[in-house]
Amino acid sequence: MTEAQYDDPEFFSRYRQMRLQRSGLNEDLEQPALVRLLPRVTGADVLDIGCGDGTLVRFLADQGARHVLGIDPSHRMLAIAASHGSSGVSYCRASAESFALAPGSVDLVVSSLALHYVADYQGLVRRVAQWLRPGGHLIYSVEHPICTASNPMTSWHECHGDRHWPVDDYADEAPRVQSWLGGQVTKHHRRITTLISAILASGLTLSAIDEPYPDHDSLARRPDLADHHRRPPLLIVAARKLRRPAPTPTPPLP
Amino acid sequence: MTEAQYDDPEFFSRYRQMRLQRSGLNEDLEQPALVRLLPRVTGADVLDIGCGDGTLVRFLADQGARHVLGIDPSHRMLAIAASHGSSGVSYCRASAESFALAPGSVDLVVSSLALHYVADYQGLVRRVAQWLRPGGHLIYSVEHPICTASNPMTSWHECHGDRHWPVDDYADEAPRVQSWLGGQVTKHHRRITTLISAILASGLTLSAIDEPYPDHDSLARRPDLADHHRRPPLLIVAARKLRRPAPTPTPPLP
Repeated sequence: MTEAQYDDPEFFSRYRQMRLQRSGLNEDLEQPALVRLLPRVTGADVLDIGCGDGTLVRFLADQGARHVLGIDPSHRMLAIAASHGSSGVSYCRASAESFALAPGSVDLVVSSLALHYVADYQGLVRRVAQWLRPGGHLIYSVEHPICTASNPMTSWHECHGDRHWPVDDYADEAPRVQSWLGGQVTKHHRRITTLISAILASGLTLSAIDEPYPDHDSLARRPDLADHHRRPPLLIVAARKLRRPAPTPTPPLP
Repeated sequence: MTEAQYDDPEFFSRYRQMRLQRSGLNEDLEQPALVRLLPRVTGADVLDIGCGDGTLVRFLADQGARHVLGIDPSHRMLAIAASHGSSGVSYCRASAESFALAPGSVDLVVSSLALHYVADYQGLVRRVAQWLRPGGHLIYSVEHPICTASNPMTSWHECHGDRHWPVDDYADEAPRVQSWLGGQVTKHHRRITTLISAILASGLTLSAIDEPYPDHDSLARRPDLADHHRRPPLLIVAARKLRRPAPTPTPPLP
């Protein structure tokens, strides 16, 4: 995860400003879509991977979760998270790659716009599947593979006076360096196939996916979101650990 | 389905020429990816929706399926299919929308590059889920939603001397008219979310998805496929009807 980037004082200050101004996609598009896919969390033990300033951790605690553990590699983020003080909540400075949990110890794992920073996605999903109790859920959001595809990552380009979102390099699964908020962040582009296949290969079942786009209400509030109707900025994935073991895979044709 | 188009003599002749020259994506990209996801078909009762000239029907019969029924709205296509003559195979002229089958009567439903012609995809998937026996499979390929998104559908556009595949109008799920093989075909653009959600809503579980791209061997044989590394031309979806009923959906947060 890009801890160095989020702990860079100038980058961090610009990121905070964006979040405080609510000018990103978090409040208007990403969080509502992620929350729609959440199960009932009353009494649940929850892990939030890449919890940032703890917004989602506090929300889940307020919804009745028994305990929410937020992990993040950035000590500046965790300082903000901890400053809120909330019962049933704890934080741990750790990267998704190095973090470990006892098998069968959580009912829900969430991750909001963090997994595209993780180099070993398949390994993480495999470990999450072990951390979950039977019946437990994994719900995460990432930047949409359509948007992370082009190398280097570009938000849009102008051609013949019109704005375009070209898809390119889709099959080339490798890190992308993106200029963002006056700094440079490294994201890992993965095909949708790779994201979903890792979930199924870990024995989880897919419960839902979503590619949220602005509705009329959010467009009235924020006309600047209109472009997200043209190409999907986000992918939300929900998966579940079956109570019974999944059926054995069907053998291929001879 | 666009029966009128495929039964237009001139369009049909151009389509046949493309297939005989193997200049489309079928033999090099689509069929291998679809076949990789097939279950063992020995003794299976199979339905092929939009079977065209019966290539996949004959393949499945050769692999040991007990019976393969191919349906297609084009009588020109079915005439070619029937001309091959094969045991354990039958054909029926029908559109996917009007076709009906007894509940629990097939082990496998396949569909190769046909469902983007179907207007009521959700309704069809719901009916397929009823036609399948417990443990049965649905495997289909469609043009990738990235490619059907722009309205009107365009394969690529030239900008600053380079070829681009712009994604546009992704959230606008509606028919697209595409100029293809000197004619016009109508395809139905749907988001990946819509394709997958209909499967889960019908009580099927997702077994696999794929977005095949050309490997080194196929690129050596056909350098013209290189562009499909840049954006995914196809989406392959595999789903299964559980032997036991799926768990009830988790209630949303209050």
